Amino acid sequence: MHALDQADPLAHYRDLFVSSPEVVAYLDGNSLGRPLTASVERVGAFMTEQWGGRLIRGWDEGWMQQAQTIGDDLGRVVLGAAPGQTTIGDSTTVLLYKLVRAALSDRGDRDEIVIDRDNFPTDRYVLEGVAAELGLTLRWIEPGDVTVDRIPLSKKTALVVLSHVAYRSGYLADVAGITAAVHEAGALVLWDLCHSAGVVPTELDAWGVDIAVGCSYKYLNGGPGAPAFAYVAERHHGLRQPIQGWLGSQQPFEMGQGYEPADGIRRFLSGTPPVIGMLPMRDMVALIEAVGLEAVRAKSVALTSYALELVDELPVEVSTPRDAAQRGSHVTIEHPRFAELMPVLWEQGVIPDFRRPSGIRLGLSPLSTSFAELQLGVEAIGALLEH
Amino acid sequence: MHALDQADPLAHYRDLFVSSPEVVAYLDGNSLGRPLTASVERVGAFMTEQWGGRLIRGWDEGWMQQAQTIGDDLGRVVLGAAPGQTTIGDSTTVLLYKLVRAALSDRGDRDEIVIDRDNFPTDRYVLEGVAAELGLTLRWIEPGDVTVDRIPLSKKTALVVLSHVAYRSGYLADVAGITAAVHEAGALVLWDLCHSAGVVPTELDAWGVDIAVGCSYKYLNGGPGAPAFAYVAERHHGLRQPIQGWLGSQQPFEMGQGYEPADGIRRFLSGTPPVIGMLPMRDMVALIEAVGLEAVRAKSVALTSYALELVDELPVEVSTPRDAAQRGSHVTIEHPRFAELMPVLWEQGVIPDFRRPSGIRLGLSPLSTSFAELQLGVEAIGALLEH
Repeated sequence: MHALDQADPLAHYRDLFVSSPEVVAYLDGNSLGRPLTASVERVGAFMTEQWGGRLIRGWDEGWMQQAQTIGDDLGRVVLGAAPGQTTIGDSTTVLLYKLVRAALSDRGDRDEIVIDRDNFPTDRYVLEGVAAELGLTLRWIEPGDVTVDRIPLSKKTALVVLSHVAYRSGYLADVAGITAAVHEAGALVLWDLCHSAGVVPTELDAWGVDIAVGCSYKYLNGGPGAPAFAYVAERHHGLRQPIQGWLGSQQPFEMGQGYEPADGIRRFLSGTPPVIGMLPMRDMVALIEAVGLEAVRAKSVALTSYALELVDELPVEVSTPRDAAQRGSHVTIEHPRFAELMPVLWEQGVIPDFRRPSGIRLGLSPLSTSFAELQLGVEAIGALLEH
Repeated sequence: MHALDQADPLAHYRDLFVSSPEVVAYLDGNSLGRPLTASVERVGAFMTEQWGGRLIRGWDEGWMQQAQTIGDDLGRVVLGAAPGQTTIGDSTTVLLYKLVRAALSDRGDRDEIVIDRDNFPTDRYVLEGVAAELGLTLRWIEPGDVTVDRIPLSKKTALVVLSHVAYRSGYLADVAGITAAVHEAGALVLWDLCHSAGVVPTELDAWGVDIAVGCSYKYLNGGPGAPAFAYVAERHHGLRQPIQGWLGSQQPFEMGQGYEPADGIRRFLSGTPPVIGMLPMRDMVALIEAVGLEAVRAKSVALTSYALELVDELPVEVSTPRDAAQRGSHVTIEHPRFAELMPVLWEQGVIPDFRRPSGIRLGLSPLSTSFAELQLGVEAIGALLEH
């Protein structure tokens, strides 16, 4: 056993995940987290006993509230959010659209949205679309780490959309500081938590965040295409989102004439909640609660530190911050040959993530990644680079 | 065994569904179809072998195309749609919003949308929202069966949004005739197939339909909150929907600057496809293909005819058409005491659907419903009404 695994108090949690004999090193927990065995069992039991046995009665027995009950759990354990401000549903893209439109529904004469060129494509694409349809101007932060001084704030700024952890470099933004600066400029800020939720301690309420979205299939282990989550601070529950559906209405089963938005977080829902799709993340949230997010973060820092130590032996460029306080849970390295090496690595059961044109991301999910597999993976990359 | 079940060539298919000993009569397949045992097994195997074993590699091994491959199967078996026009994703509400906005993106100076007051709430709510944001006028068809002569078409009509089968009465609209009339007026039509998909033979291509949406958790047995489907006729693949996301872009993994919509049906997608959520419907589509949709429809007509025969013995009002050619697969009866009787019925394992203020819908899913359970269910309602 690797000495670092032997010393790791969280090492045994790895046994809770579905293992696969041909996977030598899974280093892509930041794209798709592994399934918990408990989740496989939970989904099977749900399909047989709840869907198959309770049938339509299930909607009266908890399914209808599930987006909010799991949302509250996520808020408490992962987001630092008091109850009633978090919900689950849609994809990250759709939630982004709805919440950006909601944030802009009360913008007065402010007509600028700020976003960075390094933000994930879907965030940029959604913003481009919304700016075009509302006749607003996009102000771009040019590539680089997002710090307060680089954000073009003005009296025209309506909304700033940023990522907590940058999907390429892994740079960890100062949410509290930037949020305060945006508020001082009189604007709102929407944080994308896709690459931080479940692995970086987050205090949305304490940091004064307005709105946040994130996905559940990375460090929340929700499964491929699992639904997204949204946080909307209670003071913004008067905002209106554009996709008016029955599940966001005041009285869904009255089926009356005329849409009246529900009070509270439910107004940001639209269609029927993805009941089965949100089950796996529940197990991961429960596990994070048992372990403690601070302990998860401590192992994440140990893993990324060890990854940096290992990749420093390779002829690669490192684009992830050296300062642990400035990085999330993945380490990105660049080499012109990575595109050609990826299929070979996958064939060997070494599975990092690839980002064109030349980046490999080592995504380290603390509860399912061992130091030993990290070492095996980096060594496999090194061996291929030598040939 | 009930004589009608004995004579039913489709009777044995009922054994393929998860059964529950305490369910005496499940008469709500039009709200939530029962799970196929094969679907429980498929999801479990997927979670362990695909998600757990292939991990991120799965996206390169079929997951990314799955919305279109299952969409094509659905198109061929259920919708009468040639390949490349059907996809899976989002909720019905979100797809409605996106496709209504797409349909209106090329409306010229037409500024009216037609919808009926009897349409499902989410359809009406979505349209109210879109009309308000685009400054368009809603023209309402007042309550009653939707026939060509009752649709207020004019040179101002941009779009008509109707349901194939009315969710309350079960009235089956003449899609081909109405679509032709709407086209003659120079407008587009969007059909909601939620209550017909999988149970009423449908020929979207042959009928000249422009756009259709529907859910997969009713007669397609996709599970609670399973993703919706969309059909967009190939001639409309130049339309633009407003939620620009990476999965609808030309090259999702280039992650480049500037959104360019994909060619074809994929441009109507936005976020990461719900890979696990769309698995169960696949089994139901395969089963419908094996049985044949015409045979499914024949049993559906036999079931609704028998239901009408049975409810005619009760002191209730019937709001479903007597002519089989004008009804879908549910029968709605009205009685002022139904609201108070529903909990008692559920307690007895007799599970129809309730629609306020006083309607019970008997939703008859041909492959999972027996004539015997239909009789038991109606008799239980009758017995309660006698007290």
